[in-house]
Amino acid sequence: MSEAIRFLPPRQAVLSRRAAIISDLADLLPADCLVHEPRELVPFETDAFISYRRLPLAVVLPKTTAQVAAVMKYCHRYGVPVVPRGAGTSLSGGAIPQEDAIVLGLSRMSRILEVDYANRTAIVQAGVTNLSISETVAIDGFFYAPDPSSQLACTIGGNIGMNSGGAHCLKYGVTTNNLLGVKMVLVDGTVIELGGKHLDSAGYDLLGLVCGSEGQLGIVTEATVRLLAKPEGARPVLFGFDTSEAAGACVADIIGSGIIPVAIEFMDKPAIEICEAFAQAGYPLDVDALLIVEVEGSEAEMDAMLADIVEIARRHGVKTVRECQSAMEAALIWKGRKSAFGATGRIADYICMDGTVPLGKLSYVLNRTAEIVERFGLRVANVFHAGDGNMHPLILFNANDPEDAARAEEAGNEILKLCVDAGGCLTGEHGVGIEKRDLMRHQYADADLDQQMAVRSAFDEGWILNPSKVFPLDGRPAA
Amino acid sequence: MSEAIRFLPPRQAVLSRRAAIISDLADLLPADCLVHEPRELVPFETDAFISYRRLPLAVVLPKTTAQVAAVMKYCHRYGVPVVPRGAGTSLSGGAIPQEDAIVLGLSRMSRILEVDYANRTAIVQAGVTNLSISETVAIDGFFYAPDPSSQLACTIGGNIGMNSGGAHCLKYGVTTNNLLGVKMVLVDGTVIELGGKHLDSAGYDLLGLVCGSEGQLGIVTEATVRLLAKPEGARPVLFGFDTSEAAGACVADIIGSGIIPVAIEFMDKPAIEICEAFAQAGYPLDVDALLIVEVEGSEAEMDAMLADIVEIARRHGVKTVRECQSAMEAALIWKGRKSAFGATGRIADYICMDGTVPLGKLSYVLNRTAEIVERFGLRVANVFHAGDGNMHPLILFNANDPEDAARAEEAGNEILKLCVDAGGCLTGEHGVGIEKRDLMRHQYADADLDQQMAVRSAFDEGWILNPSKVFPLDGRPAA
Repeated sequence: MSEAIRFLPPRQAVLSRRAAIISDLADLLPADCLVHEPRELVPFETDAFISYRRLPLAVVLPKTTAQVAAVMKYCHRYGVPVVPRGAGTSLSGGAIPQEDAIVLGLSRMSRILEVDYANRTAIVQAGVTNLSISETVAIDGFFYAPDPSSQLACTIGGNIGMNSGGAHCLKYGVTTNNLLGVKMVLVDGTVIELGGKHLDSAGYDLLGLVCGSEGQLGIVTEATVRLLAKPEGARPVLFGFDTSEAAGACVADIIGSGIIPVAIEFMDKPAIEICEAFAQAGYPLDVDALLIVEVEGSEAEMDAMLADIVEIARRHGVKTVRECQSAMEAALIWKGRKSAFGATGRIADYICMDGTVPLGKLSYVLNRTAEIVERFGLRVANVFHAGDGNMHPLILFNANDPEDAARAEEAGNEILKLCVDAGGCLTGEHGVGIEKRDLMRHQYADADLDQQMAVRSAFDEGWILNPSKVFPLDGRPAA
Repeated sequence: MSEAIRFLPPRQAVLSRRAAIISDLADLLPADCLVHEPRELVPFETDAFISYRRLPLAVVLPKTTAQVAAVMKYCHRYGVPVVPRGAGTSLSGGAIPQEDAIVLGLSRMSRILEVDYANRTAIVQAGVTNLSISETVAIDGFFYAPDPSSQLACTIGGNIGMNSGGAHCLKYGVTTNNLLGVKMVLVDGTVIELGGKHLDSAGYDLLGLVCGSEGQLGIVTEATVRLLAKPEGARPVLFGFDTSEAAGACVADIIGSGIIPVAIEFMDKPAIEICEAFAQAGYPLDVDALLIVEVEGSEAEMDAMLADIVEIARRHGVKTVRECQSAMEAALIWKGRKSAFGATGRIADYICMDGTVPLGKLSYVLNRTAEIVERFGLRVANVFHAGDGNMHPLILFNANDPEDAARAEEAGNEILKLCVDAGGCLTGEHGVGIEKRDLMRHQYADADLDQQMAVRSAFDEGWILNPSKVFPLDGRPAA
């Protein structure tokens, strides 16, 4: 590795630096772990937040923690930015590269290393997909709880980076509530272990800090996750209302009464129509708002909990209550909900916001969202995790019309600011990434943000890990 | 405030510095918020870990966040160490002062500011006692879940500092799982807010980091906590076994089967005898190990869960199963358990370890603990949160015999190392404090500890907040 790469004249330096880095990486890794041909780099140029594209300098796909450590040691020494990547399903641009950065993909580290039912834990490599954990332990009656819509593809490493949620996190919590430990490579290649199979840990909760830090504090290569026993049964029920206000107030009352169903999903009229047209889920079309409430447990437990929920819904003038009569119907109800994004994509381009608000503000924020979108001459469909107050307004627009796209972005920003002003926050489960970095000043006072950035610098003084994400671009404190 | 205090000759400087600090603090605070007469400082010289005593330089008892901020701004400017203190119930010495430090007590900030059932949250000042939160909302059918044995006295601020647990955290989690937000004064007096009523937060999880950081990252002055609905009913059941191995294996099997009772407490024969003699709780005296398993829910739910648990216990040869027949009996069962420390204190001096191990290792660690204690010629009683693997061996000794005390301390250290070596950790809920700071190198590799200390420095470069705790005394990186 040549120190000389830093001191060449600019243009030549860029070219030579790239060549030197690739050559050095080739010394560190087996040939099949390094991607640098421009054609082969294309799959890594963006993620599910498709507003930006940029070819990375190179992609490394290590197979072991030791290889990750070797790459980080090298990149730290030469100041090469590193963008960690799971499956590239980020909705906020968390895995989007930049041209002077290498992408460090964890997809080759996809083994389940241990399942331990006595401690209800599994140890998995970071590139394991979310769903494959549950699939592996299903035969023994267990599952891994967080269930992002992308769970078929997304990896546990990405879930940890974004502290991912899902429809069922109302009862089971998000990733941080189901993560017990990680093995992590620090920026300089040092390997540390945080947490483990035991309750809590002595000293600071660095594990909690790492969860949701969007790959900026280190590269997680292994995770110890909690397994839960599958409930005896589960039953989704549809509740149709004449107004979104009534549905929103009903959600706040269910939660306020202390009942915690597994999931409470909300769909407004546009979302109902879009999903029903796509999935024929049997959703009622004569209502303005729909709640999917899922309860679980024994038949007696589900009956008792549902009776309480139905009574609350009646107080809010529920129009339709539909319990499903079979496993097939239940699956259809969830198919409709989980295909919402794809079904919306069939009829328009859209951006999906991820603002989260206190439950008492659901109706207020829904109304104000409608006003904002109307003012920009756009349409919106709302389909979201209502029990958590985690809203997902889908703003529909025409991506081929740059003015329309700009209006959609502006409307989205106003909606997120509205969520913050209502006592909520910018993101429930999708992360900040590139998408929301400039809104962070709306969420946080300078002192709050400065402290977050100081913590980042305590892990990565040079800010080479997943640069240009999370914090405003002008945010970095002077060196 | 005079800059000159730093430049006086040593002896005179110490005296004058103390006088100058007290005089300056008197300018910052109302007269009734400052304690500096030696006689009045005595109540602050130690906490529930009574092995160390030291009078602090002074005690401040601010009534507002602004006063806390003013004190911190001053102490930061002049490098005065600050030891935050709740109710002084720390079992690890977390609130023990040092002579050059002021104690910042939060006991005057003890108001409940808001109860919000729609969001199931309460906003409280840091000096509110743990139990008073539950008492305030009990009439509406809610409670605050973490329940340390000291809950009548201990404060929510101290609970946050130590990430406190309790018998019922098996189901409900520890403090970090029930904390939604804090208002915190940074070392330089800046006030920041972390989290809030909404799910998750954008950016790093500083809230999770602060929880359990033992007062070293800032002074929490307000907390937003989660309220839960009280279950319909709760029922503790006694399971007596002929051996600790059988009881330990039974616990692992209950948890391994996916059942999560509210609590699984374990008592060995010495603990049973000590508690029964004190509380007449009706514990069986013809068994070698006792489990108190509490289930909750409707009568039908409790019956169903208990049937499963009894079946598992029978597979492990349970000798006695005793369901309580009345609320009075239930209260007695818990009275016996919760008085374990006090009852032990009647017959001997003791130190209580707090090591936590994976459930599969319970029996192994119990056996090895017995061997260690016997080798030191001491006795031990075990009474602990078995469902969490959170062990509390009480090592009995004679505090008037310095050699006996030294042997007890050495045995305790060996037991904690044993827990770490078995895949567990030094502390489940009592914190590191002074007690376990020198054992942190046994738990953590240098790289792990260095990263924790770097995070501390990112909040408090001068390490003036709760100094000499958590990290080994030789641990601080060179400036």
